[in-house]
Amino acid sequence: MQPLSLPPRLLMGPGPINCYPRVLSAMSTQLVGQYDPTMTSYMNEVMELYRRVFNTQNQQTFLIDGTSRAGIEAALVSCLEPGDKVLIPIFGRFGHLLAEIAERADAEVHTIEVPWGEVFDPQQIEDAIKKVQPKLLAIVQGDTSTTMFQPLEELGDICRAHDVLFYTDATASIGGNPLEVDAWKIDAVSVGLQKCLGGPSGSAPITLSDRFVSCVRKRAHVEAGIRDAHHQGSSGMRIRSNYFDLPMIMDYWGDERLNHHTEAATMLFGSRECAIQLLSEGQDAVIQRHQLAGNAMLQGVIALGLQPFGDLKHKMSNVVGVHIPDNVDGEQIRHDLLNIFNIEIGTSFGPLKGKVWRIGTMGYNARQDAVLHTLQSLETVLRRAGFALPAGAAVDAAMSVYAGEK
Amino acid sequence: MQPLSLPPRLLMGPGPINCYPRVLSAMSTQLVGQYDPTMTSYMNEVMELYRRVFNTQNQQTFLIDGTSRAGIEAALVSCLEPGDKVLIPIFGRFGHLLAEIAERADAEVHTIEVPWGEVFDPQQIEDAIKKVQPKLLAIVQGDTSTTMFQPLEELGDICRAHDVLFYTDATASIGGNPLEVDAWKIDAVSVGLQKCLGGPSGSAPITLSDRFVSCVRKRAHVEAGIRDAHHQGSSGMRIRSNYFDLPMIMDYWGDERLNHHTEAATMLFGSRECAIQLLSEGQDAVIQRHQLAGNAMLQGVIALGLQPFGDLKHKMSNVVGVHIPDNVDGEQIRHDLLNIFNIEIGTSFGPLKGKVWRIGTMGYNARQDAVLHTLQSLETVLRRAGFALPAGAAVDAAMSVYAGEK
Repeated sequence: MQPLSLPPRLLMGPGPINCYPRVLSAMSTQLVGQYDPTMTSYMNEVMELYRRVFNTQNQQTFLIDGTSRAGIEAALVSCLEPGDKVLIPIFGRFGHLLAEIAERADAEVHTIEVPWGEVFDPQQIEDAIKKVQPKLLAIVQGDTSTTMFQPLEELGDICRAHDVLFYTDATASIGGNPLEVDAWKIDAVSVGLQKCLGGPSGSAPITLSDRFVSCVRKRAHVEAGIRDAHHQGSSGMRIRSNYFDLPMIMDYWGDERLNHHTEAATMLFGSRECAIQLLSEGQDAVIQRHQLAGNAMLQGVIALGLQPFGDLKHKMSNVVGVHIPDNVDGEQIRHDLLNIFNIEIGTSFGPLKGKVWRIGTMGYNARQDAVLHTLQSLETVLRRAGFALPAGAAVDAAMSVYAGEK
Repeated sequence: MQPLSLPPRLLMGPGPINCYPRVLSAMSTQLVGQYDPTMTSYMNEVMELYRRVFNTQNQQTFLIDGTSRAGIEAALVSCLEPGDKVLIPIFGRFGHLLAEIAERADAEVHTIEVPWGEVFDPQQIEDAIKKVQPKLLAIVQGDTSTTMFQPLEELGDICRAHDVLFYTDATASIGGNPLEVDAWKIDAVSVGLQKCLGGPSGSAPITLSDRFVSCVRKRAHVEAGIRDAHHQGSSGMRIRSNYFDLPMIMDYWGDERLNHHTEAATMLFGSRECAIQLLSEGQDAVIQRHQLAGNAMLQGVIALGLQPFGDLKHKMSNVVGVHIPDNVDGEQIRHDLLNIFNIEIGTSFGPLKGKVWRIGTMGYNARQDAVLHTLQSLETVLRRAGFALPAGAAVDAAMSVYAGEK
């Protein structure tokens, strides 16, 4: 029962990453009661801050108390009744996750797939929508398993034209890549803090359009024990999860303040700082910082003689996949980076397991010094493992990017 | 976008309450990666610490990433397949919550009820078990809505005799009242941090017996995207929730370290400190501290001429219900306590709404000074509201309890 003592890791994997200091500080704030006017006023402020993060006017913008997949599950199980059709284009592990969550909700799940390392053309998605005629299109914006970034700009119009609701999981991409919820006509988006927003896992910001809210409101049922005589059950099938029942969560965050869970205040304080960090630095500036760091890392690994993974035109700014060279023990390299240099990079899942490293440049760590330390250290451990490479080239390439020369 | 600034409330309601300072400090700790050996080693340590908190040898003792009702839902939806029979004895709001979550899982829910303010005799429960022959008995240990504390000692043997699994939600009671998971033969228990454990809401410690684990393991299905060829699906019906799929969560906390969610590290750090606070002070000492504070508060409100709510023989140590006197505006009293004295006490739900205040003495706030400040301030606001009461009697009564005279 010793005091908590953790090594000063530089987290350059696909997330979680180091938190911004202001986020950590806020998380040691003493609590107030859940209905204290100062607490509900911060809840309202968090809603407003995340409207700005999501670039939306959606009234229903709040936090789900859980990790990012809690936000996904809340959106899908509140929307999809058993037998409802959902179309899920899959381009990596987190597309499979959407399908799996929808299957468990007993939705009729239709998937289309592209090989890992590619994204979809909007036409492919529209063709599938015409064929399937789903209630919902659910797609990941950025899938860290492949580093790919799916363009969403055209999908909103396609969905509206076919009267389809449009959900996206933007956990991996938000803050480091553009996301325009209203302009792109996305009906529901959920995210997490632990990537480019620079916070810890454990809170899932979510935003819902009026169309999406109408859909889930049809299934509203106030729980027994707090139900008053004036609460009428709705006509729709009751949502299978109490915890993820969006209408009840909306009534907790709304003026009704109907008790549901007890808001995880510490996570709310952290979420608030993540949003303030992004908005006070400026979304465009933060995205540019991620692009610069991501490009510097990409040019650095290329200069080392390593081959980046996937379609680089559609890579997220904040993570790059790197083919592990033949004759190099990928796990030993990761082990040495961690144990000698206190730097973490990522391994991979599924078809890329053991074949690709994933190196992130996210949030607080989308910084030149973090990029350079990582490249230098990677160079050193590869060199000492017997891999021939041009000395100093990685750092030079990255510094050229920062100097505007690449 | 000002820095977070909250008033220094003394939280004397039914929870959440003020966190122990060591818990808050730990929550500003910088992160490491989710599979970092230092992280997994702390995960293992947290499992061991909560075995001691729960007084169990259960291997499967870990955290659900969400508020306390996330722990409830994980236990119930992983265990109950549609059509499975569950018996839920209800003695307050949180019994209704168990029934509601089980209904949403399409279990066949059987309830028995006693009036709010009472608890069950074990014979009533055994009679219902004989009649219903459920797969699971699910019951709250302490229901803050009524302040009642259900004796569980005899229920484990009853459940074993009838081959019934036994789950309890001990969120409100743990840390301030006895809970002997193994000795009482309880198969699954979930809790939260925000009551007597003295942490924030947002993490739900849970423990599962081998019997319970066998039941949920029959429904294990590794998710697509991380599934290898050697992962066979089990015969049981797939659990309807991915987020609350206990077999997958066990494989994440276990040696397999199969990716599920990304552990909410900050909440884990806080959970760890809650356990250490309890165990280093000593469970018996902490329970005694709660009994003392709770009894001092009880004697104090009685000395004020107020009437406590419910069957005092079966009251939790850590919260007391108080009938709001006629001609007193209960919400105005709460408002004045909060705004003049920075002290929060609770209102009530359902049949007790507007009729009863709930005053807690939990965790960090189970202290003499907190009890006395609250009683003095309650006396002052009642007096100024025109309620006749014996000056100083509340504090004298509470101090007598602390002096061992009552």
